[in-house]
Order: sequence, then structure tokens, then C-alpha cells
Amino acid sequence: MDISAIANQALKSAGDAMASGPNAAEKLAHLADAEMKAVNALILQRMGSPVPLIPKLAQYLVEAGGKRVRPLVTIAAANMIGYSGDAHLKLAAAVEFIHTATLLHDDVVDESDLRRGKKAANLVWGNAPSVLVGDFLFARAFMLMVDAGSMDALKSLSQASSIIAEGEVRQLAVKGDIDATTGSYMEIIEAKTAALFASAAEVSAIVAARPADEIAALDTYGRELGLAFQLVDDALDYGGLAQSLGKNTGDDFREGKVTLPVVLALKKADEGEKRFWARVMSEGEQTDADFDTALDLLREHDALRDTLAMAQTKARTAQDALDIFADSKWKTALIDLAEFVVQRAN
Amino acid sequence: MDISAIANQALKSAGDAMASGPNAAEKLAHLADAEMKAVNALILQRMGSPVPLIPKLAQYLVEAGGKRVRPLVTIAAANMIGYSGDAHLKLAAAVEFIHTATLLHDDVVDESDLRRGKKAANLVWGNAPSVLVGDFLFARAFMLMVDAGSMDALKSLSQASSIIAEGEVRQLAVKGDIDATTGSYMEIIEAKTAALFASAAEVSAIVAARPADEIAALDTYGRELGLAFQLVDDALDYGGLAQSLGKNTGDDFREGKVTLPVVLALKKADEGEKRFWARVMSEGEQTDADFDTALDLLREHDALRDTLAMAQTKARTAQDALDIFADSKWKTALIDLAEFVVQRAN
Repeated sequence: MDISAIANQALKSAGDAMASGPNAAEKLAHLADAEMKAVNALILQRMGSPVPLIPKLAQYLVEAGGKRVRPLVTIAAANMIGYSGDAHLKLAAAVEFIHTATLLHDDVVDESDLRRGKKAANLVWGNAPSVLVGDFLFARAFMLMVDAGSMDALKSLSQASSIIAEGEVRQLAVKGDIDATTGSYMEIIEAKTAALFASAAEVSAIVAARPADEIAALDTYGRELGLAFQLVDDALDYGGLAQSLGKNTGDDFREGKVTLPVVLALKKADEGEKRFWARVMSEGEQTDADFDTALDLLREHDALRDTLAMAQTKARTAQDALDIFADSKWKTALIDLAEFVVQRAN
Repeated sequence: MDISAIANQALKSAGDAMASGPNAAEKLAHLADAEMKAVNALILQRMGSPVPLIPKLAQYLVEAGGKRVRPLVTIAAANMIGYSGDAHLKLAAAVEFIHTATLLHDDVVDESDLRRGKKAANLVWGNAPSVLVGDFLFARAFMLMVDAGSMDALKSLSQASSIIAEGEVRQLAVKGDIDATTGSYMEIIEAKTAALFASAAEVSAIVAARPADEIAALDTYGRELGLAFQLVDDALDYGGLAQSLGKNTGDDFREGKVTLPVVLALKKADEGEKRFWARVMSEGEQTDADFDTALDLLREHDALRDTLAMAQTKARTAQDALDIFADSKWKTALIDLAEFVVQRAN
């Protein structure tokens, strides 16, 4: 199947999904409702502290919500493989804590204005609490993992945490670098996003003491899902295929983050376009009209379409990785989730 | 013994120490030389990353040195109790990583100019790498703990990490609060400093599977040593008893941190003095002459002497906690270290 066909199919799936009620993430959340309630209770309990600012700031983030995609993956994977203990609940909460901690630190790093549609925590309370409450949540994540009792799960999530930080530093180092390649971009998103998805998926098989091939299959599912997720996020920063612009679009552009859409547009750029990207990305000189120009160039070179086609390919690889597991409603839910992650951008 | 006698004794010990060659920390470092070389090798190896900025920034901090007091405590405690494995080396490196991560984040939080006498990392590379490399070191600390293989040691150090972050947030919240009490101050330094010293000391007994009373004794030793250490640091920020001012003095004052010397001076302050402290600490309005005025007030009310007397008491409690252990050169070294920590300020 060529790229156009994949993109067209993705568009079609999106249409189907919109006609058919709750999306796959909502359906999965419904399926996992009882366990996600337990995870949420753990999250609230473990962010508790006698220091008032900590639960206040943590709750601000938790209420801002997010879709809890990562803990949902942990829960769904645990059910798919028939795990009967409760360690996966603690690990799911730990995964969400690690994710929330990185969001808090990202806000300081990116100097973001908005996070999950709300004013970023660092703008409400300042950088210092964002750094420190992030550290607190990170430490509490490890306390949850200790309670879960699996050294191998601890190994997986501590490695993922280290890789995330490396990915973020690397992203910093290449900021504004218009020589970025598809390869260097993929390495960065694999580290900063996909590693945690991979760990979120595989820890269930780890605590369930499943064979190595099942652990590896879930690692692959999570990793490819995470790549698809980030590719779509990066396309959405330019409004996705429909280029529907909300108040969250344009962050990457303003910050000079050379994400895949820009890498792809640069590949096909003429000299004038290259000078444009160099000015807005590397030199950080942007006027009000530049974002529109960027959108035009992305459209002209099919950069968003091609980014989403790559996301579709990653989602397909994620789904294929589940082949070794017996069919079940949970397996179906994980397959549908991978589809949904891509549909978001259409 | 009253406070003056304690302070005088501390001064005398300091004099003795100065006359007698290497200090106790140097002697302990010499005693633990082979193991500390192994710890340093682990530190260098585990801060490695293909992302060039990470080892560069981490090495900057590690080379700035510091006295490696915390890992020295871990190593000395392990030897004192006759531990024969090598998990303590990994835990000692993990403890130093946690400490270094908190320093990096503190610099962002405090907007420090200097750290360990060098220009603070955040001023050299910016806030973003300091936050992210701190996260990296924190994650690597947990990977080291996983390698050490003791879930109970992981529990101790993850709890300590959570408590440190709580202490730092609490310190933020009371910045400029001239109603701070000795009690609230002690709670903050117990969290932000003493918890890691306590964990650094007790993890050796934990991996050595020693009885609960020995674990508790080492926890007490580390905690009281940490309290003494921070009390002395806070006195040194005003030049210590000799009020010898270097370029690192005055940081707490400039940042409006109400440390014990100020709490004690405020207790004895008249109305005019209270207005002075309120202006410089709470309102943050400082002129060039204010630090000298503060020094005069601390001297007038014996605030530094009383702070150091409290440090001496804590150091004594630390030493007493080691009574249950058989005499050895390592026990003597830990006892001498507690003495030295206080002598630094004289």
C-alpha cells in the first residue's frame, strides 16, 4: 500500500469512527472502569502530602486530566494476558506519575503557556514548584513500584525514565536544527515518548511472569503505539490534516522544535523555503504571518499527510505485535486504541 | 553542659583539629580510598550517555567535587558492620546521584550563582539542561539501586527522595516568613537534608541484612549527622562563628531563606530589628549595607553561637547512636566525621 492509500484509509477510518459513538479510548476506559477507578484512587492517595502546595499543584494537573492513555495500556495488557494480582494497578499509577512529572518539567523546559488546555502550572505557581513537585511525583512513582514488589518492573520503568530524560536533552540540543533527519527525529520521539509507552505495556507481562516473547510483544506494541501517538501529536501541532487550528497549535513552531512535518517539508524545500525555515526555526525570528506560511508549505509538500501515514504504519506494527495473544475483548480494545491514536489527527 | 560550654568545646576541638593534620573527612576518605575509587568509577560509568550534553554537565558537577560525604557514610557504615558484598558501592553511587540531582534542581529553584565554588550549572547551560540532567541522574540512581538488588534499600531511598522534595517545597512556601520557628525550621532541614543522610547510612545495614536495631541506629546516626551538617551550613552562610566571609556567604540572606540563625535573632529582636528582618526577608528590599547589619544582629544575639551549639548537640546524638556497634577504626571514623562536620564552622 502506498502512502496516499494509507492516508486515505486513515481518513476513512476516522469518518467511520466519528459515525459510531464513543471513540476507542473512551470504550477502553469504560471496559477498564473498575480498575481505572482503583488507579485514580491510588493516584490521589499517593500524591498526598502534609505540604499543602504539593497536592494542590498535583491535583491541578490530574484534574486537567489527560486521557490516562498510558495507565489504560497497562491495565488492558494485564487483562489481556489474564493477570490476576493487583500489582498492575500500582504500576499503572506509577506510570502516570512518571508521565505527569515529565509534563511538569517539560513546562519549565519549554516555557509553555498551556498544558492540557489549562494554563501551565509553572505560569500559575512559578518554575520552582513545577520542578520540585515533579521530583516529588517521580519519587512517589518509585515508592509505588517498590510496593508493587517486582524488581524487573522497577528495572523497566527506571530505564524508561532515564531514556526519557536523555531524549529530552537531545531534543534541546537539536532545537532549531534544520539539518534534522527523519532518523534523528524518530530516535528522539522513541526516547522521549515511546519508551514510557513500551514500559507501560510490558510491565504487566513482567509482574505476571509471562514468557519473554510476550513481554517483548507488549514492549513492541507500546513502543510503536507511542511513536504513532507522538507523530500524530506533532502533526496536530500544525492542526492535523484538516489544519483545524486551536489555541494549542503552533507551540512546536514557536519553540523552534524541528518535528517530522518540518523535516519532511525541508526535504522538498527550494532555496527560498530553506531560508524561511532557517529564519523561523534556527534564528527564532518569527512574524505573525510566518505560521500561516509554514502551514502552506506543509500542505504544499504533503508533510502532514506523510507524517500521519508514518503514524498509521507504526499503529499497524503495534497491532501486529499482538498477534501472539489469543483473541479477547481486551486485545480488541488495544487494537482499536492504536487505530484511534491515529484517527485523532483527521 | 550549657550552651556556652558546648560552643567553647567545639571551638577547642576545632583548634585541636587544625593543629593535627588532615581533617576527619579526609582521614575517612583515605581509609575508604579503594572503595571510593570503585564508587567514583561507577559514578563516571553510570553518568555516561550518547547525548553529549549529559556527561558534560554531569561531569562539571562531579568535578566541582564536593566532599562525597554521603557515599562516604554509606561505605564507612558498611565496613563498620562487616558487610562483605558489593551492593553498598552501587548504593553509595546512587546516593551521590540523588544528591547531585537535587543540587541541579536547587540551582534552578534558588536561581543560584555559585555551586561548590563554581558557576552554577544553570548559569552556564540554562535552566532546561539542569532540570533534565537532574532527572537523568535521578533515574540512573534508581537503575543503580535495581542493580544493587535490595527492594528494602530501594524503599528507603525512594522514601528519602520523596521527603527531600517535600522539604524543598515546604522551604519554598515559607520563604521570607519571619514567623518561622525553630520547630518548623528543623522539620524542613530534616526533610531536605537529613533524610538522605539517614538513608545513606541505613542502606548499608539493610543490604547486609542486619537486625532492626542496627538499621535504626544507623538511620539515627545519619539523620542527626545530616541535621548537624545543615545547621553548620546555615551558620556558614553568615560566615560561621569567625564570620569569615567568602564569596559563597550571604546566599540564604539574599534569597530570603529564614534559617535558624535568623529565627534565633528574631526571637530576641526588638521592634526595630523585627522591622529590619521583615523588610529584608519578607519584602525582599535589600541594600548593600543590610548584610552587615544582619551580621551585627546575629552577633549581638549570639544566634550563630546558638546555632552551632545545636549542631554540636545533634552531632553528639549521632555519635551516641553508634554505641551498639563494636569498636573499630570505621566506627571511630564515623564518630570523628560527626565532630568534623561541626568544626567546619569554627
